[in-house]
Amino acid sequence: MKYCFGIDIGGTSVKMGLFDTEGNLLEKWEIPTRKENDGEAILPDIAASVKDKIAERKIAADDICGVGMGIPGPVTPDGDVSICVNLGWKERNPGRELSELLGGVPVRAGNDATVAALGEFWRGGAQGCKSVVLLTLGTGVGGGVILNGKVIDGAHGAGGELGHIVVNPDETLRCNCGNYGCLEQYASATGVVRVAGRILASKPEQASTLRSIENYSAKDVFDAAKAGDAIALEAVEILCKYLGFATANCAMTVDPEVFVIGGGVSRAGAILTDGIGKYFEKYTPLLKTKAQFALATLGNDAGIYGAARLVI
Amino acid sequence: MKYCFGIDIGGTSVKMGLFDTEGNLLEKWEIPTRKENDGEAILPDIAASVKDKIAERKIAADDICGVGMGIPGPVTPDGDVSICVNLGWKERNPGRELSELLGGVPVRAGNDATVAALGEFWRGGAQGCKSVVLLTLGTGVGGGVILNGKVIDGAHGAGGELGHIVVNPDETLRCNCGNYGCLEQYASATGVVRVAGRILASKPEQASTLRSIENYSAKDVFDAAKAGDAIALEAVEILCKYLGFATANCAMTVDPEVFVIGGGVSRAGAILTDGIGKYFEKYTPLLKTKAQFALATLGNDAGIYGAARLVI
Repeated sequence: MKYCFGIDIGGTSVKMGLFDTEGNLLEKWEIPTRKENDGEAILPDIAASVKDKIAERKIAADDICGVGMGIPGPVTPDGDVSICVNLGWKERNPGRELSELLGGVPVRAGNDATVAALGEFWRGGAQGCKSVVLLTLGTGVGGGVILNGKVIDGAHGAGGELGHIVVNPDETLRCNCGNYGCLEQYASATGVVRVAGRILASKPEQASTLRSIENYSAKDVFDAAKAGDAIALEAVEILCKYLGFATANCAMTVDPEVFVIGGGVSRAGAILTDGIGKYFEKYTPLLKTKAQFALATLGNDAGIYGAARLVI
Repeated sequence: MKYCFGIDIGGTSVKMGLFDTEGNLLEKWEIPTRKENDGEAILPDIAASVKDKIAERKIAADDICGVGMGIPGPVTPDGDVSICVNLGWKERNPGRELSELLGGVPVRAGNDATVAALGEFWRGGAQGCKSVVLLTLGTGVGGGVILNGKVIDGAHGAGGELGHIVVNPDETLRCNCGNYGCLEQYASATGVVRVAGRILASKPEQASTLRSIENYSAKDVFDAAKAGDAIALEAVEILCKYLGFATANCAMTVDPEVFVIGGGVSRAGAILTDGIGKYFEKYTPLLKTKAQFALATLGNDAGIYGAARLVI
């Protein structure tokens, strides 16, 4: 049996998985992400953990076919990272460095959202499809575009940056990217909370269960919506409208077989996919048959699956 | 020397080109598009013209490597056309039919806008690039997406349908597709004339050279804008804003190396690419290096070049 490792580097922890080359996850574990000193310990920590696992499992060096790695920032097709704010990295090629630390094992690196899309494509909600667009609705909104089985990185590293599709040019609040009205401002966990807050403030006379929850979360907004709370329903409607708008325009560009919705917000389930589907339908009269909307199925493991896929 | 034919079927005429397999256009000509009786004469007319050319040039059957064809409507990856309004066709496979009419010569068919994109990619404004998005601004707005050298047709035939990206959901006038606020409603030749008309009607007190031109054209609007006419400038600004918006969102999805602007409207030149570039810049703060905007260079020949490329 041959093996590979799938590694998903996050700002708090590094998720690691040992796979066989059939794509079966044999074991997974996590190590902390040590970001101090510009994150200089991260790759040595990963190398040590990989070596420990190889020793523990008594795997022969020849049976390791490679290590794939998802990184929370832009990665060029050559694996260069010019800046990765979340890890403190600047101007490095983490794949090459990790390969050296592991005595020459092949290592490939990619953007984490793109790698998660690859995981869902390979083993999750888009399994069996040829083309998929994944939207990860978490703290921010990430994305990945896979067409004819190939990941679309883009000529300037912005392929799949779906969170920064402009959906409301009239927005007055600025997105982190510097733009106004990005999808991320409405469809992320923080976005839906902010939108609900705006509606609550604009309708002080209207009752809402959200008013009694201190620091309500995106989950609270969805739970209130499912229970019929009018203000929460309005916030969810806005989220679905902008996701429907963005995916419709995406369909007029690359027309994937399926859109997969992942990330923490996707736990809301059918209220989300049904809502997005309704607006997608409205915005795509040109399409007689339409893309499906599916929920991600790999959860937090999408990244390690996709990373492993990079080297299989 | 080996040869191939590139054929671009339009609603009025069929453009035909004889190429060598190096991609050199040796000769081009046109025949009328006979649309009567559900366009049943179109393919036999094309076959006859191809055969005439082969006879005239005394080309050996073995030296014909194939015929490529661009069709003004959706074409599936298998070459099926379920409906082509412009030609009167329904439920046919024109590539297979033409191949039979030509005694088995390989024939491949694609959507005309996509095929034109392939032409510009191969021999025109995007030559040397790996990825390009082409926008054809004519009577309507067509598009083509080529990534890593591959044409993106889409899972439901809507890949590159950039004219139907929604850019203004508040629009009250309906697009031909049934949607409201499609790019085509502002950025086509008919669109820019309509937008100028709206502005003229809304500002009856304001002078404009357009008021003295009966049935002014898109070219008239651009000429007036270049001469400083305030109303025409406003119409051109709206067109550039929506093209900047659509291309920016396209960049956040597939991030091509270059956007190529073709079609009759593109003859306006730098006023168009500069104007679009200004809004693209505004809507893409995330991109440190950005896609270029270039004008198509093959003009009306893009279709025959791209069609030939289908079989080379």
